[in-house]
Amino acid sequence: MYGRYTQELVLLSLNPFCVFFQMYGRYTQELVLLSLNPFCMFFQMYGRYTQELGAYAKEEAARLREEGVRRRSVTERSRSLELLENDKGCCAKCRTQKWMYVNLESNVFLQYLAWVTYPVVLITFSAGFTQLLAPQAVGSGIPEIKTILRGVVLKECLTFKTFVAKVIGLTCALGSGMPLGKESPFVHIASLGAALLCKFMSLFGGIYENESRNIELLSVACAVGVSCVFAAPIGGLLFSIEAMSTFFTVRNYWRGFFAATVTAFMYRVLAVWNRDEVTITALLPTNFRQDFPFDLQELPAFAVLGIASGLGGALFVCLNRQIVQLIRNQKTIKKFLMKKRLLYPALVTLLVSTITFPPGFGQFMAAKLTQMESLETLLDNQTWSKQGIPEEFDSNSHSQAWKHPQVNVFVTLTLFVVMKFWMSALAMTMPVPCGAFMPVFVIGAAFGRLVGESMAAWFPDGVHSDGTIYPIEPGVYAAVGAAALSGAVTHTVSTAVVVFELTGQISHILPVMIAVILANAVAQSLQPSLYDSLIMIKKLPYLPELGWGHHEYYNIRVEDIMIRDVMYITLNCCYRDLHDVLLTGHLKTLALLESSESMILLGSIERAQIQALLSLQLGRPRRLKYLRDRATAEKRLSVVSHPGSEDGSTMVNQETSLSSTPTPSMKPLKPALKRPSVVDCPTEIPMPTSKKWEENQLDEQVNFDNCMIDPAPIQLVENTSLHKTHTIFSLLGLDHAYVTSIGRLIGVVSLKELQKAIEGSVAVKGVNVRPPLASFRDSGTSGTIMNNENKARDLHKLWNRRKLMSLPQEHRASDSDEKSK
Amino acid sequence: MYGRYTQELVLLSLNPFCVFFQMYGRYTQELVLLSLNPFCMFFQMYGRYTQELGAYAKEEAARLREEGVRRRSVTERSRSLELLENDKGCCAKCRTQKWMYVNLESNVFLQYLAWVTYPVVLITFSAGFTQLLAPQAVGSGIPEIKTILRGVVLKECLTFKTFVAKVIGLTCALGSGMPLGKESPFVHIASLGAALLCKFMSLFGGIYENESRNIELLSVACAVGVSCVFAAPIGGLLFSIEAMSTFFTVRNYWRGFFAATVTAFMYRVLAVWNRDEVTITALLPTNFRQDFPFDLQELPAFAVLGIASGLGGALFVCLNRQIVQLIRNQKTIKKFLMKKRLLYPALVTLLVSTITFPPGFGQFMAAKLTQMESLETLLDNQTWSKQGIPEEFDSNSHSQAWKHPQVNVFVTLTLFVVMKFWMSALAMTMPVPCGAFMPVFVIGAAFGRLVGESMAAWFPDGVHSDGTIYPIEPGVYAAVGAAALSGAVTHTVSTAVVVFELTGQISHILPVMIAVILANAVAQSLQPSLYDSLIMIKKLPYLPELGWGHHEYYNIRVEDIMIRDVMYITLNCCYRDLHDVLLTGHLKTLALLESSESMILLGSIERAQIQALLSLQLGRPRRLKYLRDRATAEKRLSVVSHPGSEDGSTMVNQETSLSSTPTPSMKPLKPALKRPSVVDCPTEIPMPTSKKWEENQLDEQVNFDNCMIDPAPIQLVENTSLHKTHTIFSLLGLDHAYVTSIGRLIGVVSLKELQKAIEGSVAVKGVNVRPPLASFRDSGTSGTIMNNENKARDLHKLWNRRKLMSLPQEHRASDSDEKSK
Repeated sequence: MYGRYTQELVLLSLNPFCVFFQMYGRYTQELVLLSLNPFCMFFQMYGRYTQELGAYAKEEAARLREEGVRRRSVTERSRSLELLENDKGCCAKCRTQKWMYVNLESNVFLQYLAWVTYPVVLITFSAGFTQLLAPQAVGSGIPEIKTILRGVVLKECLTFKTFVAKVIGLTCALGSGMPLGKESPFVHIASLGAALLCKFMSLFGGIYENESRNIELLSVACAVGVSCVFAAPIGGLLFSIEAMSTFFTVRNYWRGFFAATVTAFMYRVLAVWNRDEVTITALLPTNFRQDFPFDLQELPAFAVLGIASGLGGALFVCLNRQIVQLIRNQKTIKKFLMKKRLLYPALVTLLVSTITFPPGFGQFMAAKLTQMESLETLLDNQTWSKQGIPEEFDSNSHSQAWKHPQVNVFVTLTLFVVMKFWMSALAMTMPVPCGAFMPVFVIGAAFGRLVGESMAAWFPDGVHSDGTIYPIEPGVYAAVGAAALSGAVTHTVSTAVVVFELTGQISHILPVMIAVILANAVAQSLQPSLYDSLIMIKKLPYLPELGWGHHEYYNIRVEDIMIRDVMYITLNCCYRDLHDVLLTGHLKTLALLESSESMILLGSIERAQIQALLSLQLGRPRRLKYLRDRATAEKRLSVVSHPGSEDGSTMVNQETSLSSTPTPSMKPLKPALKRPSVVDCPTEIPMPTSKKWEENQLDEQVNFDNCMIDPAPIQLVENTSLHKTHTIFSLLGLDHAYVTSIGRLIGVVSLKELQKAIEGSVAVKGVNVRPPLASFRDSGTSGTIMNNENKARDLHKLWNRRKLMSLPQEHRASDSDEKSK
Repeated sequence: MYGRYTQELVLLSLNPFCVFFQMYGRYTQELVLLSLNPFCMFFQMYGRYTQELGAYAKEEAARLREEGVRRRSVTERSRSLELLENDKGCCAKCRTQKWMYVNLESNVFLQYLAWVTYPVVLITFSAGFTQLLAPQAVGSGIPEIKTILRGVVLKECLTFKTFVAKVIGLTCALGSGMPLGKESPFVHIASLGAALLCKFMSLFGGIYENESRNIELLSVACAVGVSCVFAAPIGGLLFSIEAMSTFFTVRNYWRGFFAATVTAFMYRVLAVWNRDEVTITALLPTNFRQDFPFDLQELPAFAVLGIASGLGGALFVCLNRQIVQLIRNQKTIKKFLMKKRLLYPALVTLLVSTITFPPGFGQFMAAKLTQMESLETLLDNQTWSKQGIPEEFDSNSHSQAWKHPQVNVFVTLTLFVVMKFWMSALAMTMPVPCGAFMPVFVIGAAFGRLVGESMAAWFPDGVHSDGTIYPIEPGVYAAVGAAALSGAVTHTVSTAVVVFELTGQISHILPVMIAVILANAVAQSLQPSLYDSLIMIKKLPYLPELGWGHHEYYNIRVEDIMIRDVMYITLNCCYRDLHDVLLTGHLKTLALLESSESMILLGSIERAQIQALLSLQLGRPRRLKYLRDRATAEKRLSVVSHPGSEDGSTMVNQETSLSSTPTPSMKPLKPALKRPSVVDCPTEIPMPTSKKWEENQLDEQVNFDNCMIDPAPIQLVENTSLHKTHTIFSLLGLDHAYVTSIGRLIGVVSLKELQKAIEGSVAVKGVNVRPPLASFRDSGTSGTIMNNENKARDLHKLWNRRKLMSLPQEHRASDSDEKSK
């Protein structure tokens, strides 16, 4: 079984493109992008084959047991013979399924065990392995990548460990047959590949040392990840842009197209070389009518499908979050699960497998089909509800799974949609690497099919009023539903393009676009996107999107949300001030002001720099030097008073004991010692110190000479609107920005305040949010005047200070004299 | 003829979507987007019908003359009879053409006159009308929109006058049948529509007053413009993003999709309501093989086609620029053309029409087909080179135009490509509203067809090695060629998507993508895009793209390109300084510093604000007040010396004469008076002034109280890389940025410097560009240290100043005392 893809691996490693581009030196970055492809492809294939392996194992078990059963129950055989005879040409899957029907009464428990054990073991292994190796690999990965692309550094997310955990965990999770997706984990894997390649390339120096370049590469990697799942280069790129970025560099667009096309090409060309296909076609080619793709009168049905999908998408996101919060908030459940971490995924898998057990409830929801098979059957261009002629179904044997002898196709479709809906939302919460796109896509297709079949049953001769009969094609509705529901869940419209590329048909572009747009409009006004919801659940530092239509964002100003008591240091401060300032505040950087009177912002200094300054001042070398100096001085003294009696060593001991006893004057240093990172040396090596020396050191003026200062931190004005602030923060990937008024620092806004202001949580400690007031404030002339007055006041202050300052200088005195005349 | 589309107009005005969205108050912006559609649609239709009208007129003229000829030349009739009999079922166009063949010898001059006069008159009218009403309407419009989206204000480009000129000019230009495009003018028209609607909506207040909102709307309008030409919503949006923006707000993406979809829907639904189509399909639906779209062995041919298209695209851009520069630089031509502005377009039109005259040279290049007809025939899925069975061509009669009895199809295709190539490049230079996308698209399709026909002739049984014969479809090559050449000329890859939506088939996605990517790679490394080239020709203030692979952008720093002597004003300056500073420099804003010693940047003030300050100080009210005061004072004096002898009136006259005589002390004001905008009042109304009073006024300290100050201008640091600077400039749409070092202003970088640095023109007056040095400078540790030293020096300066300043204050003296101990 596994031997089948060694051929592809060899072909991949021979990748002729790599050779071509290696020669062409300028394309070094593109080369990296290219080398991502084998990764993705390999895991894409691997996942598929593991899935097949699972199916194969089940089937083999079934076959063996079938033989056993045949030997044992010869008496029963006569009854099942005619059924078994019928399926000569049918695929192995169907035979297993039919056999299951036949042997229902005899051996159902063994079957159930085989059906359930396999996924439970795989999922438990996946969860355990991921947990042990790299817990960051759990879940979708898109939320993390989105946060990283936003500019936040999540170091653990892009390590080799995470890569291994993600790949192996995902393979097992997909192989289990649970309703889990592979799209977003693939994005994570591609990003991991990109990040690791960047690290590798940076060994050779050059452009890969550049941080922003690496982020550009990451965003291209996302496109590769998506496009390789559906063999959809354009849709993949667009989806990755929509789902991942707030602002997109058009410069990168070309690169994304290139990488995504090569990925899709390689993926599909392997199918040709593997003799699965004659030439490169779409992944799931459909055969819808081209000359008359749909009737204009069908458009309302598509619109309804879109709106319903929008509601469904919002419900899915909500349901998923509710499940997570239920588990989190219920203390009994939480405590229990914290103890037995692997129990939760095992239980969920057990539940889902039990329900989908084909001889049990699974028979009513085509549970024995894999996701891709379900999708293939749902996009079928036959109509099922006609109770059609048997020949129609021989050609696509999987469609049989939707036909139940007792229950009609509407019931199976409805059951499929409803059951898969909550199962996917539940399965998503398991701590394994998994996504949600693919299950949602399939659910959407099933829902669309349901609507399509209903339409076909309602209008058996089509809706066209002219002479020609154009029957309704439920497959088109399935395609529309898939695009609409997945678009609604992810808040993207490019799922439409994914559908076109997946099916290889674009003639039904308008229904798809209309449904996707309506689904997005509905879903976006009800819930955040799935990825934003996951970001909230994971509490990642992220800036929420400004919803559209909220004009109040233009009325809220920075002064309404900024923190007014900013931690700052001045140019003439002493080390004690540095020390005090380090103990408070949470921002990574501190403002450097000219003086506390002028409040003029000169730049910002990182916390680490200040710690370094302090360490330098209070650190070992200076202490030793001081002690040496004092020792010399005392020696000189002792030479005078007690010549030759003592050297410095005993005194050093004395000093040590002195410093270890708590003294009241040491208090300001105490909290610092609790924080190991503030000043390292005193705690690490209990150096001989004197209280007086330390105090003196702290009272010295800071020497900023060797300090890295960011001389141009981003500044806002107090009346910058929330909308503009959001734009600036997202464009530049800021963590915080200072608010100044004509050079004077008056406040600071960090991501946290912005996040809270957008989410509308008004009662924040230390933050003065007043949107209700802000919205009533007239933004017209009076506001401007008030503002001008403020500015004038500020200027006056500056001017007064200036006058004070200019007193020693005489050259402008005549002006002011003349003015006062 | 014109009555045909009144129906559509009525339907449009009833636009049911508008009603729906009007109810839904939140969608106000979407409503505006929506209302754009009727505009576009109307002009789209209008252009089409005008073209048809032109064809109709020609045909009518031909028919009348034909009748005349028939009456006159009964003897000749017998010879032409059998030819005329054959075309009963053929379209009117073909009849005209055949008639032309028949009557070649008798009346060729009259035919020629009819063929030539019509376009010459239309183009001349278009050029004249545009020139008179709004010269900004000339040309494509995309360069201007691109510049506006970049943040530069081009006021004249978005006025109602321009709108009218563009619409009427474009209609005439398209009607002339010259090889001109309508895509980019449509973008301009849609943007104009958006801007005018914004202006209209801002009458009602609300969000439309917001500048950034309007720019968002503009970028959506571009998508509407493109998508309405090809009925391609996705391709239109993507093309507009690629061609127009540097950074794209993903927030806007949804809006663009919405607007573009509604446009495409409305445009296509009109065809259905008009009974042209049964249902909504693609604009030019093709019928390529779906099950086996192409063979893998054809891929090298597609790659070659892509590379050749890339070269062709670069050549086209280059040729177009060369023609413009030839005309500009040749003084004789320029002088002649400046006198007779309308002569140039008339001459070009005459030349092009003469060459395309169907009975003349035009017969070898299918000149009688319109652009859309040519495209339709080129995308035909029949093979022409087989010299196929006559029945094949009856179905698509236009294809006949490519068959010449004496010359084979390869020659006509080659001639078409070569002739149209230079004709389009030449026609683009005419001063009429026109684009180049459509002609380039058609040329690309013809070139692709040529390659396809060659392939089909070379491999008559296809290239597939297995048993089945899959013949080569030259139509696929035409589609690939169209996408590749138009992509190469515009430097976009989304032309691929345009092709899919235009043809309604996506199964040949990989060949198209490969060719487009290769074409882009070749064209981008040779020439700028057509739109960037036009921007250069028009000398618009634009930031060129950073090409990829140029790592030197990371090594050039802001300090290498910044201007060091910045114009600034200080907080304690007098009005004379303001006055002086206004006379120099070109930037729109001036830096406001704390003082010229500290150089601390407090903010920036717009030039207009300073003019206002000066006007206030030297303006009429203050002069009058001064005169009144002085009159009162002198009256009091004169009451003492000459009681009742004179009042103020004669003295006022005397003052006037005084101020009008040039005095040496007035010199600094003189240039100001030449610039009418600096200080208005003194020139407008020659007010009675005294030299002394003015001098005193100018020596007064400036009161900035009522002045609008931007307190947080964007600041860079001296070692910001060129790459980062470019990113910041394009992200924030800056015109200039100040370079500061720990609060101290040390330089300024404007768009101009950046532009020059990127384009590599090193020898700029006043700009210290040294990329060669910069590239040799090691960016490692030594650079950082040097930089730290600089910073340290700066800090020392600040510190010294601070010490001086702190002399009057005593509270830190103890610290420094302790330090000096």
